[in-house]
Amino acid sequence: MQLGLIGLGKMGFNMRERLREGGHEVVGYDPRPEVTDVPTLAALAEALESPRVVWVMVPSGEVTHATIVSLAEVLTEGDLVIDGGNSRYTDDAPHAKLLAANGVGFIDAGVSGGIWGLTEGYGLMVGGSDEDVARVMPIFDTLRPPGDVADGFVHAGPVGAGHFTKMVHNGVEYALMTAYAEGYELLAAEDLVKDPQAVYQAWTNGTVVRSWLQQLLAKALKDDPGLNDISGYTEDSGEGRWTVEEAIRLRVPVPGIAASLFARFLSRQDDSPTMKAVAALRNQFGGHAVKRISTSG
Amino acid sequence: MQLGLIGLGKMGFNMRERLREGGHEVVGYDPRPEVTDVPTLAALAEALESPRVVWVMVPSGEVTHATIVSLAEVLTEGDLVIDGGNSRYTDDAPHAKLLAANGVGFIDAGVSGGIWGLTEGYGLMVGGSDEDVARVMPIFDTLRPPGDVADGFVHAGPVGAGHFTKMVHNGVEYALMTAYAEGYELLAAEDLVKDPQAVYQAWTNGTVVRSWLQQLLAKALKDDPGLNDISGYTEDSGEGRWTVEEAIRLRVPVPGIAASLFARFLSRQDDSPTMKAVAALRNQFGGHAVKRISTSG
Amino acid sequence: MQLGLIGLGKMGFNMRERLREGGHEVVGYDPRPEVTDVPTLAALAEALESPRVVWVMVPSGEVTHATIVSLAEVLTEGDLVIDGGNSRYTDDAPHAKLLAANGVGFIDAGVSGGIWGLTEGYGLMVGGSDEDVARVMPIFDTLRPPGDVADGFVHAGPVGAGHFTKMVHNGVEYALMTAYAEGYELLAAEDLVKDPQAVYQAWTNGTVVRSWLQQLLAKALKDDPGLNDISGYTEDSGEGRWTVEEAIRLRVPVPGIAASLFARFLSRQDDSPTMKAVAALRNQFGGHAVKRISTSG
Amino acid sequence: MQLGLIGLGKMGFNMRERLREGGHEVVGYDPRPEVTDVPTLAALAEALESPRVVWVMVPSGEVTHATIVSLAEVLTEGDLVIDGGNSRYTDDAPHAKLLAANGVGFIDAGVSGGIWGLTEGYGLMVGGSDEDVARVMPIFDTLRPPGDVADGFVHAGPVGAGHFTKMVHNGVEYALMTAYAEGYELLAAEDLVKDPQAVYQAWTNGTVVRSWLQQLLAKALKDDPGLNDISGYTEDSGEGRWTVEEAIRLRVPVPGIAASLFARFLSRQDDSPTMKAVAALRNQFGGHAVKRISTSG
Repeated sequence: MQLGLIGLGKMGFNMRERLREGGHEVVGYDPRPEVTDVPTLAALAEALESPRVVWVMVPSGEVTHATIVSLAEVLTEGDLVIDGGNSRYTDDAPHAKLLAANGVGFIDAGVSGGIWGLTEGYGLMVGGSDEDVARVMPIFDTLRPPGDVADGFVHAGPVGAGHFTKMVHNGVEYALMTAYAEGYELLAAEDLVKDPQAVYQAWTNGTVVRSWLQQLLAKALKDDPGLNDISGYTEDSGEGRWTVEEAIRLRVPVPGIAASLFARFLSRQDDSPTMKAVAALRNQFGGHAVKRISTSG
Repeated sequence: MQLGLIGLGKMGFNMRERLREGGHEVVGYDPRPEVTDVPTLAALAEALESPRVVWVMVPSGEVTHATIVSLAEVLTEGDLVIDGGNSRYTDDAPHAKLLAANGVGFIDAGVSGGIWGLTEGYGLMVGGSDEDVARVMPIFDTLRPPGDVADGFVHAGPVGAGHFTKMVHNGVEYALMTAYAEGYELLAAEDLVKDPQAVYQAWTNGTVVRSWLQQLLAKALKDDPGLNDISGYTEDSGEGRWTVEEAIRLRVPVPGIAASLFARFLSRQDDSPTMKAVAALRNQFGGHAVKRISTSG
Repeated sequence: MQLGLIGLGKMGFNMRERLREGGHEVVGYDPRPEVTDVPTLAALAEALESPRVVWVMVPSGEVTHATIVSLAEVLTEGDLVIDGGNSRYTDDAPHAKLLAANGVGFIDAGVSGGIWGLTEGYGLMVGGSDEDVARVMPIFDTLRPPGDVADGFVHAGPVGAGHFTKMVHNGVEYALMTAYAEGYELLAAEDLVKDPQAVYQAWTNGTVVRSWLQQLLAKALKDDPGLNDISGYTEDSGEGRWTVEEAIRLRVPVPGIAASLFARFLSRQDDSPTMKAVAALRNQFGGHAVKRISTSG
Repeated sequence: MQLGLIGLGKMGFNMRERLREGGHEVVGYDPRPEVTDVPTLAALAEALESPRVVWVMVPSGEVTHATIVSLAEVLTEGDLVIDGGNSRYTDDAPHAKLLAANGVGFIDAGVSGGIWGLTEGYGLMVGGSDEDVARVMPIFDTLRPPGDVADGFVHAGPVGAGHFTKMVHNGVEYALMTAYAEGYELLAAEDLVKDPQAVYQAWTNGTVVRSWLQQLLAKALKDDPGLNDISGYTEDSGEGRWTVEEAIRLRVPVPGIAASLFARFLSRQDDSPTMKAVAALRNQFGGHAVKRISTSG
């Protein structure tokens, strides 16, 4: 089928390729002339036959919001917008309402798979009405991994359910990464273990802990045993923060996910103010030596 | 090759079957007459040709220790013992020394895969000398999953390295299970999400979080949506506790694994003494209502 | 000086008493006829000389908001409102703006001390302009504990700073309570320790851990050794949740406070869905026994 | 009464002074000639009248053990040894047995108060027989803070109970410090709050969070607002590690104390191997940028 696709970055570019390989007609728009198919959003709207389906794949937050506001102006009754970015699920209902005022439908779609999705397919979690989802199903079927539709695609619920599910997916992902990383640090710290990489390689088959992320860590350790070239400084893209915030709203205890989030915050601090205060306290009551920060060259 | 196998429980029974299917001659010993091949340990020793290889697959701790002490009496120079149970790795060096006094070799082998190992193969992590490991390699090759030997088997280091690696494997496993379980609780708590099971099923393909454990949780949720028949009461078999203890010894921060361990402890308490004390404190300073425990029928 | 005081519950009632003992003229309003001094908010406004100062001490959230909206209608230019409840600090700027439209000033005041404040004085953390704070200083001076003003009172910053500071105070309080409570559980679990209450009593003097909360726990344990009459079920009043949410916004790692918050959530669950999922997983891969929930009477 | 005191370091030196001011005759021994009263342990034994009481106040572990072994050689039937250092409580029973072989008694005494104990008195937690404790009570009465004996002294149980209690005290202390330190970091991160030091000062009176440690943090922040001169690098002296280990043995969940311990471990790492692995993983699946470690000057 025909699809407009806004945002041809790391994810959108690959998705256009996978969709075209799947026989769909994709009209892509991106502000960068070297990748775009049409010069403007208006041109995108013109290039598509009514009723149109437009997939938005741009950074979440302000960029996504501005894009949807702009789409509300160029789209017409019967069109449908899919937000496939990592939007916070609380943005979805307002966007759906905004578009509905013009008779335009809305689907939120969480897309997992990273740079591997092009070849392996993307895990999809979508929210919206049954009718809207059915309409876009040919697109979802091409994007998702081959095999049983239930193994790689879920219509999780009404508008918002897709991004909520993707948010939880990423929160779980944080905690999984921490789990494997703690295991790595333990193996690397113990002299008995000759080569943590070999252990991670061996875990890829037959063990209870085997997984795709686990394979990736084995690969990363093969590329750079000791991880000497990589800093522990780790950004977070929002979903981890949102997951803990939603957990608080829902009164769900999430010690594993929260620990993973806090570890990222900590990785970005030159020195921890919390630990400075602890060190200062120890000095006060015990006369314990504290490490003074050198002020001379 | 020929192998003595002590302990024909859930794991050992299946291993005997897989080994026999692989063409090995296995003489099994177990105190339960309905499964054993020989009536006594002495009979086991007699039934094997020298130099013998004996795999011990019994509960860790006292039972394993007693078995190895008994083996030290019936085995002779040139024989080799493999402890395939979930022994603490600190037990390995003493056992190796005990056996070495009689010229008997020792390998510690961590075995992962649970009840699925029979058909899929077991992930193996072993510790010992190069010579000893080479000698038993035909057995390991049958037990491990098919495919590249490095993907399912690791000679992790000298005696102790196998069980240390298996301990870390299980510590990681604890944290992975917590990650998936926290995700489940979040999905189940949010009304937008129609069916957490469908989400877990969809995550099995294409997503970043896909894994064997993740598939198992999808399966468990299919069998019992809502998990209504299962109590949260969860035992721990020791490796999680040991992992945190070793982390403390090695000064490795393991917030994810520790949170998982503490959650298990908590799951076994009728009421948390810590939270009773918190509730008592709130009552003291704020006159906050506390939930009194009813003493009447 | 003269003060209107709205809300004569556990906190407001005692504050009226302390203020009157301190020589102030307090006109209290509460919907309950048995405690109120005036029948309506309008009557309160009439009873006070212009320019008026009105202290709001009602439940945070909707009740506080409705009260301030009502006050905006009956107060006049030059009056001043103090929100002394446990409002979220993000409510303060909107309230200040609402009142400023009528020329009415606003101070947010965090009040600590619970039921003990009547006799010992209340710890105060306030936000607002220098002028507004100076104007109410006689009231603050009576409410705060005797002694140096800096030890019991802080003008933390502009509007919002008072409630932000009080929120952090309560977040810290959560973690302190957990710390003492974990210590109690450890002492109670170890047979060598004859009487955890005696230990908590002994810690009240000379030790590094001595504190007001620590004294209260000693007292609670004296009243009910073993805490047999108290359930661990523990409510949370909002500040703990907000503290973790603000920590996430500010990218501050707060593992101690978050652990305390999650422990409260958990204390209110009959059975943990997270641990049900962990138990289900163990059963799937290991054939580990799970505790089935009895369905018969 | 007469007391031998071995170890005249930061703690022992002050204790000798406090005991002498209290009218006791103290014979101190220390390898440093500038502080010792006698040249050797043998001279110490000779200088004391039988039956002797000797207080050992040296670093825990090997030094304490060696000292007690030496004492076993020079002391005689009816003498009594007090280990007042921060020994692990599991060392106490072996030491008691060693000394009992010569008819020498043993008390383990946890001593809290740091450098402030000289003037304010030391919080004491002791383990031993009723007879032995009664015999040394005059010493304990001088060391402990003035006031009710139950507020600053506890005979916690038999041999080992004193050090166990002190270990828990220090575990709680870790978590308290973390609680206050997290609060500090939050206050310092929020622009609305003008001066975190003023807040900590204000919390010293009237608030629920007031405590001795809280006062010390106010003082530390007064000395060095911003804590610019202090590194977050924080040692741990063993009791925190032991507390978590004992919690694991006793199956007591201690998320607060464990988080505090792990934060110390982390504070001593230049870069976290766990976070390097997380960063490496993100790079693998998402092509997320990682911070490369510069290898050029």
